[in-house]
Amino acid sequence: MSQDILFTTPQMAEVFSAGRRLQRMLDVEAALARALARRGMVPDHAADAIGRQCRVEHFDVEAVYREAMLAGTPTIPLVARLVELVDDDARGFVHWGATSQDILDTGLVLQMRDGLDLLLADLVGIGRSCAALAEQHRTSLMPARTLLQHALPTTFGLKAAQWLAAVTAQIARLREVERGLAVQLGGAAGTLAAYRDDGLAVVALLAEELHLPAPALSWHTDRNLPAAVTAAVGLACGTAGKIATDVALLMQTEVGEVAEGPRRGKGGSTTMPHKRNPVDSVAAVAAARLALGAVPVVMGAMIQEHERGAGSWQAEWDGVPAVFRHASAAIFRTGGALAGLEVDVDRMRDNLELTGGAVLAESLATALAPHIGRPAANTVVQGVVSVALSSDADLRAAAHDTQAVTDVLEPAQIDAAFDAAGYLGSNNALIDRALTSFTQFDHDG
Amino acid sequence: MSQDILFTTPQMAEVFSAGRRLQRMLDVEAALARALARRGMVPDHAADAIGRQCRVEHFDVEAVYREAMLAGTPTIPLVARLVELVDDDARGFVHWGATSQDILDTGLVLQMRDGLDLLLADLVGIGRSCAALAEQHRTSLMPARTLLQHALPTTFGLKAAQWLAAVTAQIARLREVERGLAVQLGGAAGTLAAYRDDGLAVVALLAEELHLPAPALSWHTDRNLPAAVTAAVGLACGTAGKIATDVALLMQTEVGEVAEGPRRGKGGSTTMPHKRNPVDSVAAVAAARLALGAVPVVMGAMIQEHERGAGSWQAEWDGVPAVFRHASAAIFRTGGALAGLEVDVDRMRDNLELTGGAVLAESLATALAPHIGRPAANTVVQGVVSVALSSDADLRAAAHDTQAVTDVLEPAQIDAAFDAAGYLGSNNALIDRALTSFTQFDHDG
Amino acid sequence: MSQDILFTTPQMAEVFSAGRRLQRMLDVEAALARALARRGMVPDHAADAIGRQCRVEHFDVEAVYREAMLAGTPTIPLVARLVELVDDDARGFVHWGATSQDILDTGLVLQMRDGLDLLLADLVGIGRSCAALAEQHRTSLMPARTLLQHALPTTFGLKAAQWLAAVTAQIARLREVERGLAVQLGGAAGTLAAYRDDGLAVVALLAEELHLPAPALSWHTDRNLPAAVTAAVGLACGTAGKIATDVALLMQTEVGEVAEGPRRGKGGSTTMPHKRNPVDSVAAVAAARLALGAVPVVMGAMIQEHERGAGSWQAEWDGVPAVFRHASAAIFRTGGALAGLEVDVDRMRDNLELTGGAVLAESLATALAPHIGRPAANTVVQGVVSVALSSDADLRAAAHDTQAVTDVLEPAQIDAAFDAAGYLGSNNALIDRALTSFTQFDHDG
Amino acid sequence: MSQDILFTTPQMAEVFSAGRRLQRMLDVEAALARALARRGMVPDHAADAIGRQCRVEHFDVEAVYREAMLAGTPTIPLVARLVELVDDDARGFVHWGATSQDILDTGLVLQMRDGLDLLLADLVGIGRSCAALAEQHRTSLMPARTLLQHALPTTFGLKAAQWLAAVTAQIARLREVERGLAVQLGGAAGTLAAYRDDGLAVVALLAEELHLPAPALSWHTDRNLPAAVTAAVGLACGTAGKIATDVALLMQTEVGEVAEGPRRGKGGSTTMPHKRNPVDSVAAVAAARLALGAVPVVMGAMIQEHERGAGSWQAEWDGVPAVFRHASAAIFRTGGALAGLEVDVDRMRDNLELTGGAVLAESLATALAPHIGRPAANTVVQGVVSVALSSDADLRAAAHDTQAVTDVLEPAQIDAAFDAAGYLGSNNALIDRALTSFTQFDHDG
Repeated sequence: MSQDILFTTPQMAEVFSAGRRLQRMLDVEAALARALARRGMVPDHAADAIGRQCRVEHFDVEAVYREAMLAGTPTIPLVARLVELVDDDARGFVHWGATSQDILDTGLVLQMRDGLDLLLADLVGIGRSCAALAEQHRTSLMPARTLLQHALPTTFGLKAAQWLAAVTAQIARLREVERGLAVQLGGAAGTLAAYRDDGLAVVALLAEELHLPAPALSWHTDRNLPAAVTAAVGLACGTAGKIATDVALLMQTEVGEVAEGPRRGKGGSTTMPHKRNPVDSVAAVAAARLALGAVPVVMGAMIQEHERGAGSWQAEWDGVPAVFRHASAAIFRTGGALAGLEVDVDRMRDNLELTGGAVLAESLATALAPHIGRPAANTVVQGVVSVALSSDADLRAAAHDTQAVTDVLEPAQIDAAFDAAGYLGSNNALIDRALTSFTQFDHDG
Repeated sequence: MSQDILFTTPQMAEVFSAGRRLQRMLDVEAALARALARRGMVPDHAADAIGRQCRVEHFDVEAVYREAMLAGTPTIPLVARLVELVDDDARGFVHWGATSQDILDTGLVLQMRDGLDLLLADLVGIGRSCAALAEQHRTSLMPARTLLQHALPTTFGLKAAQWLAAVTAQIARLREVERGLAVQLGGAAGTLAAYRDDGLAVVALLAEELHLPAPALSWHTDRNLPAAVTAAVGLACGTAGKIATDVALLMQTEVGEVAEGPRRGKGGSTTMPHKRNPVDSVAAVAAARLALGAVPVVMGAMIQEHERGAGSWQAEWDGVPAVFRHASAAIFRTGGALAGLEVDVDRMRDNLELTGGAVLAESLATALAPHIGRPAANTVVQGVVSVALSSDADLRAAAHDTQAVTDVLEPAQIDAAFDAAGYLGSNNALIDRALTSFTQFDHDG
Repeated sequence: MSQDILFTTPQMAEVFSAGRRLQRMLDVEAALARALARRGMVPDHAADAIGRQCRVEHFDVEAVYREAMLAGTPTIPLVARLVELVDDDARGFVHWGATSQDILDTGLVLQMRDGLDLLLADLVGIGRSCAALAEQHRTSLMPARTLLQHALPTTFGLKAAQWLAAVTAQIARLREVERGLAVQLGGAAGTLAAYRDDGLAVVALLAEELHLPAPALSWHTDRNLPAAVTAAVGLACGTAGKIATDVALLMQTEVGEVAEGPRRGKGGSTTMPHKRNPVDSVAAVAAARLALGAVPVVMGAMIQEHERGAGSWQAEWDGVPAVFRHASAAIFRTGGALAGLEVDVDRMRDNLELTGGAVLAESLATALAPHIGRPAANTVVQGVVSVALSSDADLRAAAHDTQAVTDVLEPAQIDAAFDAAGYLGSNNALIDRALTSFTQFDHDG
Repeated sequence: MSQDILFTTPQMAEVFSAGRRLQRMLDVEAALARALARRGMVPDHAADAIGRQCRVEHFDVEAVYREAMLAGTPTIPLVARLVELVDDDARGFVHWGATSQDILDTGLVLQMRDGLDLLLADLVGIGRSCAALAEQHRTSLMPARTLLQHALPTTFGLKAAQWLAAVTAQIARLREVERGLAVQLGGAAGTLAAYRDDGLAVVALLAEELHLPAPALSWHTDRNLPAAVTAAVGLACGTAGKIATDVALLMQTEVGEVAEGPRRGKGGSTTMPHKRNPVDSVAAVAAARLALGAVPVVMGAMIQEHERGAGSWQAEWDGVPAVFRHASAAIFRTGGALAGLEVDVDRMRDNLELTGGAVLAESLATALAPHIGRPAANTVVQGVVSVALSSDADLRAAAHDTQAVTDVLEPAQIDAAFDAAGYLGSNNALIDRALTSFTQFDHDG
């Protein structure tokens, strides 16, 4: 068992296991035989015979990998064994016209499709959690924080809606990316030479067999597909990491506005019984960093030599799985942090009061402006702020004590200006937008 | 002058210069004033007065940046100066309702739009070069090389077509990315609080003024946009670097199949007069590495704190320009390598002969198969190969000497199997596809 | 002016400016001429004549770079102009036996030496600030925070001492790295062919002239030196970023334990007058991310082709300066955050109380252990914790109410166990160690 | 089985396996108990009892990791089980005074020590291969290649010596780094509070037990150690990747100067029997890219929060193993490429002739200089080059036909100038230096 079990989901680890890779490569070999049979280039019985043997259970996975170290690719020992497994009269049709990279690349595409399905399911789960929080906390006032300092009032509902909008964008992109997955078949030169004039037809049939699009050209030399897929997965991890960071920051002892839902054994400390650690959030951030860290390996591998890279392409074999494995944890653990999230709306409101109304200085200016114009309003507020700062007083109290304010606003109007609930702008409309946008993707799934 | 002049184009350096950044921020301030005026929230004359002053010539750029070091953002000193510049009765309307990040982010979007336009123009130029090469060299035989070893025959036309397909994909993506650029306006909390109920309308008008879409929600906390844009630019650099790598490899003294077009002073060496260095290709690869190296900074910055990051967001300010500047060189220099590329088709054909027909072993098997079946064909060819290897003979000669071959193929048929021109599969159809696909984008531009 | 002015110091920007690069390359040309003259291979008057012209003021920097784009390296146009500038009888001795890379690499070494001097001076400054804080706050109690949750009590003095120890380690490493800088001279093949049997002597003399060590072998093909230097600089940025992160977190509105020292115009917000932004800390973190982001480009460039890389080496030209420029800001701004740091010891103590003594549960167990053994002590404390948690009570109060505790400890002993000042372990000794270790390096400087 | 088996050695996979991690953590727990016993703080029999159970065979590894997902760290479930395993009277002394991070960090240090030992052994092996090649090929002439173009003559011996010098530097650094490994013990705050005044003594004893140095201060907050170790390992991979790249380039079909030693099943291709793929070199480059790709994750993790990072530290748990695993393959496979390397000295010499003497233009100038001065010599050579280029002639022939040459050099002297063996400068001395320097490290091992 590899150590990285902490930063992957078991499901994703399975999708990118050594055995599954071989199975997906065998799926490609089987589909190729069927495609050739449909084109009349391979006898049906041979395609059937090949297909029957294309099950990883028939192979010694460790031995295949051991020989792959010598052969330079797992395809060669895999195909050698497959040839041995099938009957004499099917033997010559195994792997016909394909090059080892065709099988590896298309196999990887199948793995990526499985991986994207897993990620999308968990992203939709996060979206649902965010949507519930956004709806439920439309009026839960809290401080917005810029550079970790209190800025203006916001609501926890809007914060969750902003998370939701980001998650929705990632879902949309990953679905788009999934639609872009395509088979790779070209032979060593990308010419499809072995199929003579039938090459494009064979590619089309193979694509059909695997329920994938056929590409315009072979992409053995153009690593745009794996690079773009991993970049997109990395972006999704960026969103997961952002949400998880917010949760961890909101859980700080001094902030205490949210807490990850309790599960037996979660987040405790043997020697510090008071601790309620942001266990899922921290794991999500760590996994997101790991996933994002593996993306450059795959993007950098685009710069490769001629018709098959000498080191760059091979780095994808581990780089792509690393991105997916870590991404699965980043997204799953973010979901874990949000599921059952405990929200302390009282603490939020208390924290909002910490700066004595200063977060509403802009609101006071906005209240004054219709009466004395914006320029004068700004000047007056700056005066109130100076008084408050120099006297260590509450801004609200200072406002009530400032004649330039009381000349134009009634006491109740001043109090209204310091009511955070009244200075939320488009809070509701924005939450609605986020919910609506997600709903569409939630149903699409 | 910064050292990095070697790895940027002057045009892109200008787009991301200190002065241009301020101008783009001022463009946003001017557009905001106009938007508010159209909504009736700011007097027309005030919007006009603000707009008149929003020209970087009126500002001391160095002083703004110097103060930005203290203020934490260039917006604060920029707005302070703008307020000084406008008349008393417009002063209060400057920057109304915006937070400093709104101006910086939307300003960056305008810079990115300018930057994408530059990149796209140069990518289309590369596409045209590739298209011309693909058309012209449909039949220019050369070895395909996998792991830097000769594999099967291909044509230089197909190689160029594969470059072209990759470039076309990058053009398509960058255009898509450009359409996704959106204004950012939300105020410090993203609530648009200062506009009361008018916030969404103001955003829509600002977007209209800047010819950009309005986003569903404020994206100050969701750094998907800059991260996705730079990732896409990085992918384009991957393609540029791939093409440039191929050119540099083909220019090797021992390969000599192409040479960058000569320009006075290009690629010489004081002490090695024979050298014809791949100057543009090398610069393109270096710049692509630099661009790809800056992408993770921007992607990593997605993981940021609350409503404005404390370090991550600011890293974008330099990270995004770094990606664009280096990308401009990666793409421009790749274009330079291809423009006027000298192609030595004789050398290509000579190189193809280096392995004595071995690159056509698969072709021989394909020729034998209809007569004796694929399984037997493979076996026969392996025998021929063994003979050739053990006797250090030419594979073609060995084939002519092998009875299992001569039993079923006439001498002329054997020769035909060793004619690379006859073993190109879908070469022409693939070139056509690449050309067709690009043509559409070439016209779209 | 490039945008990146916000993330570099002006001094470092100067060290890595286009003009300074050329000057450093000219310094190498001049030193080479002197070295050859000392060996009797060049007439003294020729070396003098060359030396007189090796001043960047005599060169059109922009023109050199413009031609460098064609030539592939700035050395070629630079040397061409230098040849024009010197008298006829010195002309033939310019650049003798060197290859363009020799000049660029050794010039870069001189720039890196200048750059390291700047970084070291600022790191020592940070060290002094940390040392003062460590000394002054030996007894300033505050919560240690793990995973952003209160853990055990610590002192701000120890926290500063831990920063100091990290800074001291970086100073030690960068000094070590600086000692490892070496000249590069080998000619195009690294054989020193043009000097016949005098090559090693010439290298030694050149090294002497430049006050640098001579390397065992030419390192044109072994990019360990620039990669290791930038890695070390990156590590120093990691420490800077860690300190700055702590400061920003401690400045949070809800935490409020420290504040960056005020400077006129620093950290304000136009619309949020209460904000005291962690301006220097945020800039330091951003710059550290940018510096660390450029390190992989240089490290990755180690994998390069034959006797001079085709793209990788050239990426160093911008990658190394990027690391240094951003590092200068990361370190300088961290210094700015610490200089005049305001420390609120009352707030620290108040925050320590937030968890009602729970941070001292381990202390209670330690107090009980001598009486009832550690196993029983742990069991008793877990009981107290359970009571406290279930009754939402203070842990100290719960301890006083628990018979298993009061059976063996006097009330005053219980109170002592809940006195954080009594549970600081080796606090003082550790602070002393950090101070002593730094002192040595402070004097070394 | 994870897919990454292709890019790790089995030995390194074992060192960083899930089980071995737990064993190393248990080693720390056992050593801590012994250290405390030696200080008289724990009864000897309790330390013995703990030590007896600290064997991973007694633990359900999968269950520990499963609970670690909830607990946030493997230490908590591991210690919980260990407590269950030991007798009642030892139970209370398990993990005394340590925090979970102490165990994880020191356990990781032990794994890194094991890992460095493996890497060093393989690096020494590479060094021996290089040393043998350097000695054997002192006079094997070949072209040095800059920007992939022929430059001056060199020898394969010097090329191997340059590889050797780089490898020697990496061995030296990794040994230095290994000496810098230190225990981590501090408790949650780093104060060693639970040990009262005995903390430093306990740390010293723990260090002794584990044969590691004691650090000046706890480094839980200062991630310099893991970051520096992985950076150093990354640098070693850079050297491995450089060597492997050279081998792959030299194996190109058109170059053919070396070939990886044959092993049964190595590097073949089913459909391209002529191929002799650079299997080990390619795997080495891929693994080096993967290792270098994981380094930034660990370096970036230095920027972390307070007394234990929330996501950054945890990313190290997988990032450090990833660097080591991939490094093991990068280094091992480079060794595989060199072991039994076949060198074709005839092909090297043939390739050197490809440019018709142009690689010796500098040599001709050097021969002319003593007679007519360097300036005139350069001018004459440029003339010869022009003639050769314009007439497509051999440079040597053009020299013989140029009067300015024949005026001062005898025909035999001209021929001598075009004898590459006579233009090797310090070739031998440099090879000697590399051999001497390595020998020292080879014996040290």
